[in-house]
Amino acid sequence: MVFSSSIVFPGSFDPITKGHFDIISRAVTIFDTVVVAVLENPLKSPLFSLEERKNFILSACNQFEKRVVVDHFSGLLVDYLKQKNIRLVLRGLRAVSDYEYEAQIALMNRHLDAQVETFFLMAREDCAYISSNIVKQIARFGGDVRRLVPESAALALEHKFKATK
Amino acid sequence: MVFSSSIVFPGSFDPITKGHFDIISRAVTIFDTVVVAVLENPLKSPLFSLEERKNFILSACNQFEKRVVVDHFSGLLVDYLKQKNIRLVLRGLRAVSDYEYEAQIALMNRHLDAQVETFFLMAREDCAYISSNIVKQIARFGGDVRRLVPESAALALEHKFKATK
Amino acid sequence: MVFSSSIVFPGSFDPITKGHFDIISRAVTIFDTVVVAVLENPLKSPLFSLEERKNFILSACNQFEKRVVVDHFSGLLVDYLKQKNIRLVLRGLRAVSDYEYEAQIALMNRHLDAQVETFFLMAREDCAYISSNIVKQIARFGGDVRRLVPESAALALEHKFKATK
Amino acid sequence: MVFSSSIVFPGSFDPITKGHFDIISRAVTIFDTVVVAVLENPLKSPLFSLEERKNFILSACNQFEKRVVVDHFSGLLVDYLKQKNIRLVLRGLRAVSDYEYEAQIALMNRHLDAQVETFFLMAREDCAYISSNIVKQIARFGGDVRRLVPESAALALEHKFKATK
Amino acid sequence: MVFSSSIVFPGSFDPITKGHFDIISRAVTIFDTVVVAVLENPLKSPLFSLEERKNFILSACNQFEKRVVVDHFSGLLVDYLKQKNIRLVLRGLRAVSDYEYEAQIALMNRHLDAQVETFFLMAREDCAYISSNIVKQIARFGGDVRRLVPESAALALEHKFKATK
Amino acid sequence: MVFSSSIVFPGSFDPITKGHFDIISRAVTIFDTVVVAVLENPLKSPLFSLEERKNFILSACNQFEKRVVVDHFSGLLVDYLKQKNIRLVLRGLRAVSDYEYEAQIALMNRHLDAQVETFFLMAREDCAYISSNIVKQIARFGGDVRRLVPESAALALEHKFKATK
Repeated sequence: MVFSSSIVFPGSFDPITKGHFDIISRAVTIFDTVVVAVLENPLKSPLFSLEERKNFILSACNQFEKRVVVDHFSGLLVDYLKQKNIRLVLRGLRAVSDYEYEAQIALMNRHLDAQVETFFLMAREDCAYISSNIVKQIARFGGDVRRLVPESAALALEHKFKATK
Repeated sequence: MVFSSSIVFPGSFDPITKGHFDIISRAVTIFDTVVVAVLENPLKSPLFSLEERKNFILSACNQFEKRVVVDHFSGLLVDYLKQKNIRLVLRGLRAVSDYEYEAQIALMNRHLDAQVETFFLMAREDCAYISSNIVKQIARFGGDVRRLVPESAALALEHKFKATK
Repeated sequence: MVFSSSIVFPGSFDPITKGHFDIISRAVTIFDTVVVAVLENPLKSPLFSLEERKNFILSACNQFEKRVVVDHFSGLLVDYLKQKNIRLVLRGLRAVSDYEYEAQIALMNRHLDAQVETFFLMAREDCAYISSNIVKQIARFGGDVRRLVPESAALALEHKFKATK
Repeated sequence: MVFSSSIVFPGSFDPITKGHFDIISRAVTIFDTVVVAVLENPLKSPLFSLEERKNFILSACNQFEKRVVVDHFSGLLVDYLKQKNIRLVLRGLRAVSDYEYEAQIALMNRHLDAQVETFFLMAREDCAYISSNIVKQIARFGGDVRRLVPESAALALEHKFKATK
Repeated sequence: MVFSSSIVFPGSFDPITKGHFDIISRAVTIFDTVVVAVLENPLKSPLFSLEERKNFILSACNQFEKRVVVDHFSGLLVDYLKQKNIRLVLRGLRAVSDYEYEAQIALMNRHLDAQVETFFLMAREDCAYISSNIVKQIARFGGDVRRLVPESAALALEHKFKATK
Repeated sequence: MVFSSSIVFPGSFDPITKGHFDIISRAVTIFDTVVVAVLENPLKSPLFSLEERKNFILSACNQFEKRVVVDHFSGLLVDYLKQKNIRLVLRGLRAVSDYEYEAQIALMNRHLDAQVETFFLMAREDCAYISSNIVKQIARFGGDVRRLVPESAALALEHKFKATK
């Protein structure tokens, strides 16, 4: 039996939202270290580069100092966990459709490595409608996203879509 | 406080279905004017042009005369509403998956403009399985779509897929 | 065709919650009159009498003056609507399970009277977890319900469960 | 900030099922102490007494020694947590309807005490259809429940319903 | 391997609705014999006696002659199936909440007897809002249920609630 | 009235999973012939060719001999059914999101041909998290898929993604 004081929060974070930040700030009061692990998926074309996505998380979470570690991985999450010697995964839940997809992934990860456990935490209610995709759509059409994502991500979204106009 | 006698029914309408038409014909008995607002999304490739989509709606709704106005918009719905000085949005609901997505959009629109309210109306039960996407798939493979979409759209679908065969 | 400036918001309101109040305060900016219609169901044993339930609504809504009318009905909602010559019903939506039940009732009411239309409005996100039942459970065990229900209902809940201890 | 090595698993446990046991045995590999807290609800008539329910849990979990503590509470969970100086709650998730109800309770508990966090863990897939209620129905009609609940509970169920026949 | 030409459609049928009838009339075109098995549950107080419930089904289904058999059972469905030497169960599906509950029961029945398979059929769309419970509520308050349940059940409902007024 | 001893199980099967196989092996104990019909969709780019997909099914199902027939179709399922003179469709169900989509397709197929009935069977619980898409993602990143898909498909997946690395 391993006592677990570290947990991995995996995702695309393209970019980090206030919903993600809410989950991180809750987890940091419970676990010694929250590893925010950005997925590098060769099959997807994220809006922001890996470095940009990691920097947005770092600047949003610098108040937590060493309690939040920002990392990245490619390939299977279970392989990354094994390499880091961490067996806990953190995921936030909003609506029901979230839950179904998340449940499928959690069961598959457990199938791939029986040691892996996924913990689900509820996001704050006023984050229920925030997702990285919807934030990007709003920014693309000039909407104000400053209350939806951390400041550095908001500035970068505004800059990016001003540039492409 | 603004008394609202106009409501906007936004969508892609690629093409209008009998489900959309059912919602419009209900709304027209309640509101003075129903503005059917076709979204022009530069990131999507609709099957029908903006003009075609507007014409299908016009010919289906001409029985309602000036009570139904067909318009289009690009960008954020909330910006279009502000410009038109209308604060009510109409959406139809079918199944649960509809509801979750629709709820997310409605809360986000309210976040972007606290004045905006979304009204949901239930579609008729026998429209529960109709969506523009499934209609296009059926037409593509030569299925009969005349009971699924208004007549002008049905003819255009048949013509389009005969041409591409 | 009837132009509708009145809408009925039916329910048990045992007691009215901040979620109900949120829906009423939204509707009042759109419709001339919102009739809050308390159901008197001989098969249920509400915690509060019909008079108490109506008084909680009245004192919560007195800021809206004549725009909110508090009434009661027994029997079928569609019969009450016919008698009042109103054809619009207002219901709030929170989570998915709400939606399914509400959709069933809305379709049944439309079946019973084809003139009846149900409008759904989204409740504010931070009301997502509030229901009359859960509020009564919390009050029963001495929890603080003042942020969950209007003041007069909160005082009555505290009084009632102090008395029964 | 409090580092949490204890978590409370609240429920009626009337009786404990293999699904509950699966959640406990997962949690015990992660947290120092799992407090299984049996709710004593004066408004419900459980099949088994509080003592019986606690004993079923104890005999199922005795392999975990002091890592699993069996306790009971009445009143609000948040008050019990405060008294025990624990802020983490454990709940198992199976299907979607579970999730919606559980999400409502988790948000309400957080509303009542902002320190309280609920962690959700997925039950093993082959526990998806097990609930205390369905187990009691099966036992009542003479069905075999030995693969559904721990042994001591199974024997007690068989005994109870043999007696009442 | 057993070739199955008989299927059991179990339920409370208090009373049979047009939704149940729709499922039966579909099944009868596929299976040699559809056994409609009315559950006699000592823990519930149905509105209609077992004989009444069976008679409503018989008179609704007499057009199918010997293809529909009306029977009753108490205890576990799997025991009844074993005794009848039938391993197929028929259930109708309407909305999602139906599905979750039905899935739980189907998996539990398969757990209790690995030979038992449950087939789900979709009810007609315009039956989506019909359930025995909602029909009884409507009849109780004098609503017209003749399009919701077969004729003999409608007459009995009207008679019963006239008598109790 | 047609007595149906054949049923069609349509899908992309890119590739067949243990979930598909579970459904086939249940159906084969009930129907004389299960026709596994692979959809050739010109709008999609499957990972495996039509021949490969059919071969994986054949080698997985050869234990069932002539009871399982592997075929393919393009265009509308209802046209294929008419041509084969079969009116029963088989689909497996896992989670709720499955059900909603499947229900929509089943109702649309019934709309296109009133003779067509879709039977739903529950997949085994431990297949709840398996889909062709998630299996392909796992294989792409070197994960072990041998417990998720039949052997020939597992070997081909490993070979394909080794080649593309």
